Amino acid sequence: MAEQVSEQTTNRLSLYLRFLNKLDADGVRTVSSKVLAAEFDLNAALIRKDLSRFGDFGVRGVGYVVKDLKQRLRQILGLDRRLNVAIIGAGNLGLALADYPGFRQDGFRIVALFDTLDAKVGRESRSGVRIHHIEDLKRVARREGITIAVIAVPAGVAQTVVNTVVEASIKAVLNFSPGSLRVPRDVKLKSVDFTVSLESLSFHLARGEPGVS
Amino acid sequence: MAEQVSEQTTNRLSLYLRFLNKLDADGVRTVSSKVLAAEFDLNAALIRKDLSRFGDFGVRGVGYVVKDLKQRLRQILGLDRRLNVAIIGAGNLGLALADYPGFRQDGFRIVALFDTLDAKVGRESRSGVRIHHIEDLKRVARREGITIAVIAVPAGVAQTVVNTVVEASIKAVLNFSPGSLRVPRDVKLKSVDFTVSLESLSFHLARGEPGVS
Repeated sequence: MAEQVSEQTTNRLSLYLRFLNKLDADGVRTVSSKVLAAEFDLNAALIRKDLSRFGDFGVRGVGYVVKDLKQRLRQILGLDRRLNVAIIGAGNLGLALADYPGFRQDGFRIVALFDTLDAKVGRESRSGVRIHHIEDLKRVARREGITIAVIAVPAGVAQTVVNTVVEASIKAVLNFSPGSLRVPRDVKLKSVDFTVSLESLSFHLARGEPGVS
Repeated sequence: MAEQVSEQTTNRLSLYLRFLNKLDADGVRTVSSKVLAAEFDLNAALIRKDLSRFGDFGVRGVGYVVKDLKQRLRQILGLDRRLNVAIIGAGNLGLALADYPGFRQDGFRIVALFDTLDAKVGRESRSGVRIHHIEDLKRVARREGITIAVIAVPAGVAQTVVNTVVEASIKAVLNFSPGSLRVPRDVKLKSVDFTVSLESLSFHLARGEPGVS
């Protein structure tokens, strides 16, 4: 358990899991690292390395048993238990994330929103997530068993908000705010950058559609 | 230019570019595929393969010249020109994306929002992006030179909205709506799934913090 595992690797594990879910739903029983490599445009050696880090569950000549690997990846990713999530910032982005239907699959539950504006505190998102005052974060986090905080506040106040999250003993932070944030070593911070997705489209426009400019 | 390049590869090119921007800002002049491999937890062979697809700009024994590779990646990703983007859906997510500061870097410009609600049409986002009626998409897209559409509508109407986008001759779609969408072969569709980011945090909680459950 001591080896460092990078964000890139865990992202790949998530993508493998998505593909395995699809294979399983389609009734596919085994899959080779070669097929996984082709699907993700990686090489088979890297995929075998990614997966062998967490135990040897490939069968020589057969590949991986889809149901077993899927179950194992869910365990590795910690998805075999429910995780309670708080969203800090009840603006447009925070409210959109609170009602995002994808989170509820895979065991994530948005249990609270937080804001500083008195006009918002006590109200609820469309899907019924209650908005609390940020001053109550520590108390609500303990009561609701919140382990992940999502930062959806303007860049200018993001560091202050993250400090409050850290003080509330929350050890995992998903940041949607632009710019970099500082957290102690025992807190895992992940930042989402929408621009990467746009760049992928830009690439295809530049390459595939010479007439578009 | 005939070879197919996957979404995974273009995502990696984006990440390489981000790292090169950072190296360049720090005054670093050359970088090896080994250093890139360590940064992204990939292997050096895969990185050399990714980059050699677009021409041979590595120098044996030296690696890559940071400024050159950065400039070349910007060209490959089509970031050496401005791209005009429309957001369909002026709800919480659409308004949040319209005001997202990251997009404006790297040459993306949000030029219009679209919605079906008369109460919203004619108004503006906080940053001044005007909301048009979806019926005017084709006309506004042509006038403003819109080449990318961002889908930020509920899942139930997403396919209908994408059809309208396709009819307006927009060839690149960034989808934030859950569920799968169908587009013609000449349209590039990319879907954003926030759940992948949460799963990465879940992994670190499961692994690093055995006391948290």
